[in-house]
Amino acid sequence: MGGDIPPPVDELAAVSLTNDEASSTTVQKARFSDRVRIQSILGRPDGGAGLAGQKVRISGWVKTGREQGKGAFAFLEVNDGSCPANLQVMVDASVSDLSKLIATGTCVTVDGCLKLPPEGKGTKQKIELSVVEVVDVGTVDPGTYPIPKTKLTLERLREFLHLRARTNSISAIARIRHALAIATHTFFDEEGFLYVQTPIITTSDCEGAGEMFQVTTLISTTEKLERELIENPPPTEADVEAARVVVKERGEAVAELKAAKASKEAILASVAELNDAKANFAATEARSRLKPGLPKVDGKIDYSQDFFGLQAFLTVSGQLQVETYACGLSDVYTFGPTFRAENSHTSRHLAEFWMVEPELAFADLEDDMNCAEAYVKYMCKWLLEKRYDDMELMAKNFDKGCIDRLKLVASTPFGRLTYTEAIKILEEAVAKGKNFDNAVEWGIDLASEHERYLTEVVFQKPLIVYNYPKGIKAFYMRLNDDGKTVAAMDVLVPKVGELIGGSQREERIDVIMERLEEIGLPVEPYEWYLDLRRYGTAKHSGFGLGFERMVLFATGMDNIRDVIPFPRYPGRADL
Amino acid sequence: MGGDIPPPVDELAAVSLTNDEASSTTVQKARFSDRVRIQSILGRPDGGAGLAGQKVRISGWVKTGREQGKGAFAFLEVNDGSCPANLQVMVDASVSDLSKLIATGTCVTVDGCLKLPPEGKGTKQKIELSVVEVVDVGTVDPGTYPIPKTKLTLERLREFLHLRARTNSISAIARIRHALAIATHTFFDEEGFLYVQTPIITTSDCEGAGEMFQVTTLISTTEKLERELIENPPPTEADVEAARVVVKERGEAVAELKAAKASKEAILASVAELNDAKANFAATEARSRLKPGLPKVDGKIDYSQDFFGLQAFLTVSGQLQVETYACGLSDVYTFGPTFRAENSHTSRHLAEFWMVEPELAFADLEDDMNCAEAYVKYMCKWLLEKRYDDMELMAKNFDKGCIDRLKLVASTPFGRLTYTEAIKILEEAVAKGKNFDNAVEWGIDLASEHERYLTEVVFQKPLIVYNYPKGIKAFYMRLNDDGKTVAAMDVLVPKVGELIGGSQREERIDVIMERLEEIGLPVEPYEWYLDLRRYGTAKHSGFGLGFERMVLFATGMDNIRDVIPFPRYPGRADL
Repeated sequence: MGGDIPPPVDELAAVSLTNDEASSTTVQKARFSDRVRIQSILGRPDGGAGLAGQKVRISGWVKTGREQGKGAFAFLEVNDGSCPANLQVMVDASVSDLSKLIATGTCVTVDGCLKLPPEGKGTKQKIELSVVEVVDVGTVDPGTYPIPKTKLTLERLREFLHLRARTNSISAIARIRHALAIATHTFFDEEGFLYVQTPIITTSDCEGAGEMFQVTTLISTTEKLERELIENPPPTEADVEAARVVVKERGEAVAELKAAKASKEAILASVAELNDAKANFAATEARSRLKPGLPKVDGKIDYSQDFFGLQAFLTVSGQLQVETYACGLSDVYTFGPTFRAENSHTSRHLAEFWMVEPELAFADLEDDMNCAEAYVKYMCKWLLEKRYDDMELMAKNFDKGCIDRLKLVASTPFGRLTYTEAIKILEEAVAKGKNFDNAVEWGIDLASEHERYLTEVVFQKPLIVYNYPKGIKAFYMRLNDDGKTVAAMDVLVPKVGELIGGSQREERIDVIMERLEEIGLPVEPYEWYLDLRRYGTAKHSGFGLGFERMVLFATGMDNIRDVIPFPRYPGRADL
Repeated sequence: MGGDIPPPVDELAAVSLTNDEASSTTVQKARFSDRVRIQSILGRPDGGAGLAGQKVRISGWVKTGREQGKGAFAFLEVNDGSCPANLQVMVDASVSDLSKLIATGTCVTVDGCLKLPPEGKGTKQKIELSVVEVVDVGTVDPGTYPIPKTKLTLERLREFLHLRARTNSISAIARIRHALAIATHTFFDEEGFLYVQTPIITTSDCEGAGEMFQVTTLISTTEKLERELIENPPPTEADVEAARVVVKERGEAVAELKAAKASKEAILASVAELNDAKANFAATEARSRLKPGLPKVDGKIDYSQDFFGLQAFLTVSGQLQVETYACGLSDVYTFGPTFRAENSHTSRHLAEFWMVEPELAFADLEDDMNCAEAYVKYMCKWLLEKRYDDMELMAKNFDKGCIDRLKLVASTPFGRLTYTEAIKILEEAVAKGKNFDNAVEWGIDLASEHERYLTEVVFQKPLIVYNYPKGIKAFYMRLNDDGKTVAAMDVLVPKVGELIGGSQREERIDVIMERLEEIGLPVEPYEWYLDLRRYGTAKHSGFGLGFERMVLFATGMDNIRDVIPFPRYPGRADL
């Protein structure tokens, strides 16, 4: 049994191309498929030329196809998502019915021979595939295919979330997003941080960071009850009274039997009947109290009947929870989805987005800034190294400056200045005639226009602004000795403005209690958070990076809905 | 400005110890802190002995502390979460008030000198720290500290989610969990898979995989409305009628002015008054229709008023969505939280848990099995290589066999047999007198007892069972040529039974439509999923691994609530 099953392929070599392999003349099969990835051919330094003469099976989707030579053969540009480049595939009419292959979106698996393209064609292609056999075809009716060759706008593509990954732009963004995610895990793992998965469903509210989505089973249980009450109406008061009368009668019957010194069996039987009547009465009465609508107690929704026994929400940040791990494991980070139920229709907001939130024990604000700067630089270098091909595509199609921006951030020390210094610069600019929509004075929250002016115009490089007025920052940020500012910092970068917000956390129990009171927040919901300060408190710091902001920064895209696979915003949660 | 800020530390060397460094006599500071990680001292092959004479700053929490020599000095066992081992720290009474340092849970930052322990002490410690200065102390009142030195049960620790990461067991599990997560990303990245973040909030239902949590803002908007209606009661029918009368009167007034050929100004003023009256009437009427309770249309909740305009849920699986990326980018995976609103109180179920779901284009069931086996083996090898210290702790404290189990799975080819063969083996066992709680016959879903019997007793190694009856499997699994079974597979491992479930997906549009009809599922909600088969369909396969199951398997823990940082289950969503 099972003896004739092929052995596991654990021994097969991995697919990644080392420099040695790049100059080899053998082609590397994908490990868990019988095909060769197009990246393994075109991604070589020689563009694949060294593989001429090799037989390969490739699979992918036709980007463009055209019959030539009066239908004698067809050229297909095939892409399998492994890289932005397409492989040029030539099929002779004697091999296959060409009309089934050429529609954009057609999926093909073909066996063929890699050949150098004819000289003098002035082609960029270093290699093409001459097909020997068409192994498999997934056809497309071009009349109904929602994303034909004609270029659709990014906005229109959002109507087809399930198909847009097949386009050049969205697939390049997907590879860049992947690279940034892997860079994130690699950076923190290398630096000794532990990945802690903070909860998505929470009964805590992180400093009222924003409107929260509620997570509940109450509506469905209420609807079930309402349907049931219609099918099977609850007992009336008369029904309850009738059940009560039966209890009374049976009680009297038991009393009579006892008074009459009846047999034990007779009394027991009577008592059993009484108990049945009592149970029936209790059930009837309970059912009579059932009402349509959400369950309420004292006019408020009774969350003790909800799944978690408390009102529960989708998290707006994992910070407070991840601090519990930092205060025991030292250096940790969370990387997960966060949520805001804000009715915001801008190109910068999503209802569901991903955040990277490191938390460093035994680290002050300067350590925090150093970590943030090193992390952002690491991601930029990683992208330049691993996905230059996709960055070139973005530069060509969307944002000429995106590669230069990555290089700038990767190589330039970030400027650092206090909030107070930043305000002074902005005030001087205003004095010299610069117009801002939002007035500038010490104490304001910097607006995006201020942030971008500082990083793009004044300094022309990434900036870290720190020591903000306590009035505009959260209770958990460490109060500075001046009593006016807190040890908070924001990283500002060209193109998107604020990329990171962080702070040293207030580790002093008395100071944090005062801050809660000052702001008017209740203490009780934060008792667990305060325990971290009560018991073995540690200096610690952390920050949050909006992951989609980073993808926007890297790709130069304008709309955040295009840099996450499945955007959620008011009115839309497709798929 | 900012000129006096220290330069970024980008140039500082990373903290990881290479073999060269391990034999060096200089100690490696953490990159974003002024301390040295205890792992950088004790994690060296020489246990730190080669660092004798070095001055270091370390930080951490006191595991145990004791005064000795009649209060002349104290020994502290300090742990900073970087490894399971504690550093022994010696403080002289002349350096600090010892009574503030020795309570379990105290946080200390100390400067000192690394010294070889006195000979003949028979100690395991290869190095200890003699303190020169106590830099910082976060004290603990042992009378109120919830997790004192006394060992608490795992169950009791669940009452203190915010502090339990400070215990040996939970911190070891956190490091193992981290290692498994990084192994996951590294494996798939190396194999050319793209990490795709599938949505958490969804309006799709994955084949009715289980009860779903609802995500909504309707309850809060309803409550807001209800409060508002109490403060400011809605207009009565009489109010509406009065507003209607005003409209009528003003309309007549306009008509009169026109008939009287009044001045243009007078008519315009009158028309303006009429328009005000109309607006007021419309607003009054609309407000009169406001009712307490969730908004309804035709007796059903009106989800057009909910945040996303549709009823929305927390995802139960990212599979269907990640398939849209596989059918364009070829090899992808998702790794994220998934949810079940099941009222399940077992040690194997959570309401929120993490799943790894790869999806491979141009791959059949055998490729899928190969990938699953390679992935599981990779994780086991990774753990043995990277976290042997924590595995030893688990073996010592919880499950003697856990290291051997990892080695077995890492090195043994998984057995492979069909469901039909598995049933035959189970039937033969029954015939020979083996008792199962669940009857065995072709067509049943294998119960956990069957799975564990096969993997633990019969084969004594990991198994892949494939080709299951279609009646017990989902509509999207590929129908085999026998018409009775589908190309599904489950990976079974000792200790936990089913670790992975996967399948080749049905890529044929006509077959999948028939399956939907057979099962009685509506087509409309799956139109986007069917589009993947309509347009350029591709052979593809995938699987799902319950990440907490993998942590249970690796650590040998019994309760799933102990292998996730913040467990969510009926009645509990702490923090």
